[in-house]
Amino acid sequence: GGTKRVLIIFAHQDRKSFNGELLNVATHELESQGHTIEISDLYLQDFNPIATKCDISGNLNDKRVRNNTDGGKHCCDEGEISPEIRSEMTKLEAADLVIFQFPMYWSSTPAILKGWFDRVLQDGFAFNFEKQQILDNGLMAGKTALLSVTTGGSRSMLSDLGVSGDINVLLWPIQYGVLRICGFNVLSPQLSHGLPLIAESTRTDYLSEWRKRLQKIWTEVPLSFPACSDYDS
Amino acid sequence: GGTKRVLIIFAHQDRKSFNGELLNVATHELESQGHTIEISDLYLQDFNPIATKCDISGNLNDKRVRNNTDGGKHCCDEGEISPEIRSEMTKLEAADLVIFQFPMYWSSTPAILKGWFDRVLQDGFAFNFEKQQILDNGLMAGKTALLSVTTGGSRSMLSDLGVSGDINVLLWPIQYGVLRICGFNVLSPQLSHGLPLIAESTRTDYLSEWRKRLQKIWTEVPLSFPACSDYDS
Ligand SMILES: Cc1cc2nc3c(=O)[nH]c(=O)nc-3n(C[C@H](O)[C@H](O)[C@H](O)COP(=O)(O)OP(=O)(O)OC[C@H]3O[C@@H](n4cnc5c(N)ncnc54)[C@H](O)[C@@H]3O)c2cc1C
Ligand SMILES: Cc1cc2nc3c(=O)[nH]c(=O)nc-3n(C[C@H](O)[C@H](O)[C@H](O)COP(=O)(O)OP(=O)(O)OC[C@H]3O[C@@H](n4cnc5c(N)ncnc54)[C@H](O)[C@@H]3O)c2cc1C
Ligand SMILES: [Zn+2]
Ligand SMILES: [Zn+2]
Repeated sequence: GGTKRVLIIFAHQDRKSFNGELLNVATHELESQGHTIEISDLYLQDFNPIATKCDISGNLNDKRVRNNTDGGKHCCDEGEISPEIRSEMTKLEAADLVIFQFPMYWSSTPAILKGWFDRVLQDGFAFNFEKQQILDNGLMAGKTALLSVTTGGSRSMLSDLGVSGDINVLLWPIQYGVLRICGFNVLSPQLSHGLPLIAESTRTDYLSEWRKRLQKIWTEVPLSFPACSDYDS
Repeated sequence: GGTKRVLIIFAHQDRKSFNGELLNVATHELESQGHTIEISDLYLQDFNPIATKCDISGNLNDKRVRNNTDGGKHCCDEGEISPEIRSEMTKLEAADLVIFQFPMYWSSTPAILKGWFDRVLQDGFAFNFEKQQILDNGLMAGKTALLSVTTGGSRSMLSDLGVSGDINVLLWPIQYGVLRICGFNVLSPQLSHGLPLIAESTRTDYLSEWRKRLQKIWTEVPLSFPACSDYDS
């Protein structure tokens, strides 16, 4: 029990889309449970996904700042984060559960969400490789993350032997290679397949499945991944 | 033999970086072979990675145009592509070999390159699912693609049992899920691992390995993938 804080990262151009309907379901369901919801609507915020000097409010003559080649560590060390990124970091720090709501674009996230990973999850904030603060020791440990993905391809196209490739493999670089590295507990993804191929009733079913799942979300067991100690340092 | 056309998609902020050095090696080696090189320097071009109404020069009151929810098909059908995208498409149409030169960001490409996939490889231009123009029948068939990736992680971190996950799995959503779906023949990736952990001599080795590989690039056998006919339609 207790009140939780939920951050929803929404990466669709239109609230009237099916992605927008999934967002509404989550917002209403979780609010009705008494939790606090924060939404980052990336297109609406005009979020800039380009990792470059606009990350930084510091000295642009500093080669490391200009090039952003050192994983953002330099800026993080010196508190030179741009207000746009600082604001996302603040929301993330407060969150117990982070839901990423997005349509699959080219077997992955839309670029605007990829840029959110690139710019917000900085070295020293979300993880620290040198101090082995990754995986179960990651700086996001204690937080839970969930990908809610809509796809154009059908369930069978995105299955094991399907033409689009197994969706679990497609999501691995995100679920393990981004989220788990930072220490998030990752819940299994919420998949709404086959838009716009599906019947109106299936769309409605997807929405009510999502609502039902969210009713019990706080007791779900996360996916299991290797621990930091499973690797040689 | 014969003169080939090479397109290099460069996704690093700085030509003076190691990525920039790899770009120079490729340009000089391939030019010295008599081929024609075209470079898309995404940061320099201020390439916009956000898939949204700026893709389109058409009627913004058209819901489908505004939302970009139909995979870009609508715009492609009607020739309403923005000049920035049209220009990338023109370069791509002319290319025999496309090299993607980028640093690994969060187990994948930087967002600016992800946005290039999202916006340039449109339905009807790069592939057409309805007409089964994917994989060996994809609209990019006959072209070859190669990912040249630099990483922060070492070779062992990015190996099979490494902490960062197997790089071949991390690159699968791109090599299969983007490039092969469109019909490209995909050569094995060129990997320059462990920047900036490595010695200056290793950096030099990486550059000469890349040059040597490019000398014989035209006879390389691509990675093998399932064919369109291996799947139920
Ligand atoms: C750049 C790009 C890359 C993509 N790559 C992939 C991929 O790799 N794999 C994959 O599986 N899919 C891919 N897709 C498809 C994408 O995942 C789906 O288009 C998306 O998940 C649909 O979600 P939505 O919320 O936009 O759906 P919706 O809002 O439901 O829109 C889906 C369709 O329904 C139509 N629609 C919406 N509302 C209505 C309505 N009220 N009445 C009638 N029609 C309506 C829209 O015009 C649209 O055509 C890609 C799409 C794009 C643009
Ligand atoms: C947002 C982000 C996410 C990342 N995610 C991953 C990931 O998931 N997996 C992974 O393996 N790596 C990751 N990295 C690391 C990234 O892949 C490497 O930083 C990149 O490949 C290095 O390529 P470069 O061309 O910038 O290298 P370089 O130009 O060689 O720069 C690398 C380092 O060398 C320094 N340097 C450059 N030139 C000189 C010089 N002349 N003298 C002294 N120092 C110099 C730079 O300051 C920098 O610190 C990430 C980096 C960023 C910014
Ligand atoms: Zn600084
Ligand atoms: Zn139109």
